Amino acid sequence: MYDLLKGLRVVEGSAFVAAPTCGLYLAQMGAEVIRFDNIGGGPDFRRWPLAENGSSLYWEGLNKGKKSIAIDLAAPAGREIAQRLAAAPGPDAGLFVTNFPVDGFLSYEALKKRREDLICVRVMGWADGSQGMDYTINSALGLPLMTGPADDPRPVNHVLAAWDLLTGAYCAFSLVSALLARMRTGEGREIRAPLSDIGAATMANLGFTAETLLAGHQRPRMGNDIFGAFGRDFTTRDGQTLMLLAITPKQWSKALEVLGLAADVAGLEAELGVSFAADEGLRFTHRARLYPLFEQAFAQRTAADLGPAFDAGGVTWGAYQPLEAALEDPRLYKGNPLFEEIRHPSGLSYPAPGAMATLRPDARGPVQAAPKLGAHTDEVLAEVLGMSASEIGDLHDAGVVAGADGR
Amino acid sequence: MYDLLKGLRVVEGSAFVAAPTCGLYLAQMGAEVIRFDNIGGGPDFRRWPLAENGSSLYWEGLNKGKKSIAIDLAAPAGREIAQRLAAAPGPDAGLFVTNFPVDGFLSYEALKKRREDLICVRVMGWADGSQGMDYTINSALGLPLMTGPADDPRPVNHVLAAWDLLTGAYCAFSLVSALLARMRTGEGREIRAPLSDIGAATMANLGFTAETLLAGHQRPRMGNDIFGAFGRDFTTRDGQTLMLLAITPKQWSKALEVLGLAADVAGLEAELGVSFAADEGLRFTHRARLYPLFEQAFAQRTAADLGPAFDAGGVTWGAYQPLEAALEDPRLYKGNPLFEEIRHPSGLSYPAPGAMATLRPDARGPVQAAPKLGAHTDEVLAEVLGMSASEIGDLHDAGVVAGADGR
Repeated sequence: MYDLLKGLRVVEGSAFVAAPTCGLYLAQMGAEVIRFDNIGGGPDFRRWPLAENGSSLYWEGLNKGKKSIAIDLAAPAGREIAQRLAAAPGPDAGLFVTNFPVDGFLSYEALKKRREDLICVRVMGWADGSQGMDYTINSALGLPLMTGPADDPRPVNHVLAAWDLLTGAYCAFSLVSALLARMRTGEGREIRAPLSDIGAATMANLGFTAETLLAGHQRPRMGNDIFGAFGRDFTTRDGQTLMLLAITPKQWSKALEVLGLAADVAGLEAELGVSFAADEGLRFTHRARLYPLFEQAFAQRTAADLGPAFDAGGVTWGAYQPLEAALEDPRLYKGNPLFEEIRHPSGLSYPAPGAMATLRPDARGPVQAAPKLGAHTDEVLAEVLGMSASEIGDLHDAGVVAGADGR
Repeated sequence: MYDLLKGLRVVEGSAFVAAPTCGLYLAQMGAEVIRFDNIGGGPDFRRWPLAENGSSLYWEGLNKGKKSIAIDLAAPAGREIAQRLAAAPGPDAGLFVTNFPVDGFLSYEALKKRREDLICVRVMGWADGSQGMDYTINSALGLPLMTGPADDPRPVNHVLAAWDLLTGAYCAFSLVSALLARMRTGEGREIRAPLSDIGAATMANLGFTAETLLAGHQRPRMGNDIFGAFGRDFTTRDGQTLMLLAITPKQWSKALEVLGLAADVAGLEAELGVSFAADEGLRFTHRARLYPLFEQAFAQRTAADLGPAFDAGGVTWGAYQPLEAALEDPRLYKGNPLFEEIRHPSGLSYPAPGAMATLRPDARGPVQAAPKLGAHTDEVLAEVLGMSASEIGDLHDAGVVAGADGR
């Protein structure tokens, strides 16, 4: 927890990854983020991985530091509460993050009637409002056909929901940007962020689309070869797989030096009449000639020998390791000040991270766990909507809202 | 171009993907973003893909809408210009985005001497300041060992630089958040965003680390199977590959309906004593029994038949298509209002996107191309640093700065 966004009140009506990470990033920078869900949980409340007792480790990872209110979103009275929360009053509120349907009861038009200067950030699948998820947007963009070994034509999906994650962070950026604009002009707006547009724009930003237009076809599949420079996985004498890469001249010269390949590569340069040091693209063009030299050099050394030599020589490299090894890796998890062992709604205690960036000279406040579903129902109704205890009691009795006990 | 961030002046000293996308997102929301580079270009200036004339399509994709100043960053006078730009005066300036080394001439400590309330957002590789890139952070997090067909043990790198992209968007969010805080308190700060921390935190946010701690090992490799629910690629009678998924009860029932599998699946549920509708996880647990039913159903239909039936029935699905087909797809590129055909520094004209989100009711301004390297050198020196024409001339003569002609 940092306090950059202290005083902001953001309401989140969401599920899955993109909109919840947007709320997570805001909460961990100090905003009050109130997530509403259906009583009993939304479609992501039991999403795997699960703890043994059935609690979702996914849900409790994505909702850290938020408040939770549980509402019957099928009931008209419940829908009204959701609308009123989204349009909550105050100069630092009226900030709503959602992936609810664009034309439903949480449409911008419906909410704008309740608060003219509302800022609504809406994660969508396809830009036309039709259903799309990370998997189906990704399959439409060509990436699974570019991914994986060149000798296997099967499409390979990414395991990391990259489009969801990029969309979530971009939505957090858009929300604070819209708040700055509202502070200046008094005007609110709806920000629509469809995964399809985020994906289409990103493939263009990185040059993939221009490349495809020029070539007439997308980049061919090439395993782990780094496109347009030198890099790939190589195997050591003891069977370890290491990623080595050299984009800059310095990265290239250092790799050659530690691997003892300078003379061999100079010979190849003379034969081909090229300078690999001056042009990273030539290393890619001639990679079929370069790879055997590197394969032989790796095959003569163990990982225990090469790793420290690479580090000492300033080479850009990395070992492939499974996540259980990463958890013991002091560069990632072990002792990383981002992480703190805390107790989660599942009842389990395990390390969890706060904000992903480190602010200096700010103190890093304690990592906050996710709430139990409905834990802040009464608090939110009273503080945000100004309801009396008897009004809140009536809503519980009518089954329109529920607390952490599910009632 | 939108104008949410109108009036902000951001200086970017960067290369590759993460820091440049941060600047790109800021520029496309209306900030003035001034990127400085070495005369002749930084380490990413010739990054592939290239146009036939050697211009980088990658560089011109990532730097749209920015201004460019070219400086000799090895010369003391050049370094002083870079420092003065980073710490540029004014309430809406002093905003610096970089991936330069944490302890070099662009360290926070050095810059803070020039502007006490500076906001510096710094992309890093590893949190300890050592070299790390998307490829090597990713290999350390276990994902390449979880990706790809289960029958092939080779690590599979992602083609999309997901950690770079997430970091860039998170940095844009952090920068605007820090500006909001500075407006409130007058204080600046350094925000360090190492890819290693962004990766480690994200694997935890999504539940991967808790899952690994509980199981003692990371998630096994499982091809394109969606973890914890139902989904995979299936092949139609005419050999097309389609992604189908069902996480919610509605997604599941609609898929069964269109594929005519309701009775078969009910039979399997009776045999196993489970309800697939009520619990997405059971669909995953018993996927080896479910897959053959779906494989047969897909094998009986063509893609031309199934696609419209899926759409009409509200099924969540997607075809795998290469990027050249995506470019003709009206849901992604063809006619997408994000895109505009513009002329780029390479001399080529092709469609490029503006901001990735769509703001309502704001008008979407024209898409801005990337600058030629050094195109704004004189303008920036005069307007931001208040230099006279003769001072600027002297800097050119001394080779400390260069314009678009390289001199």
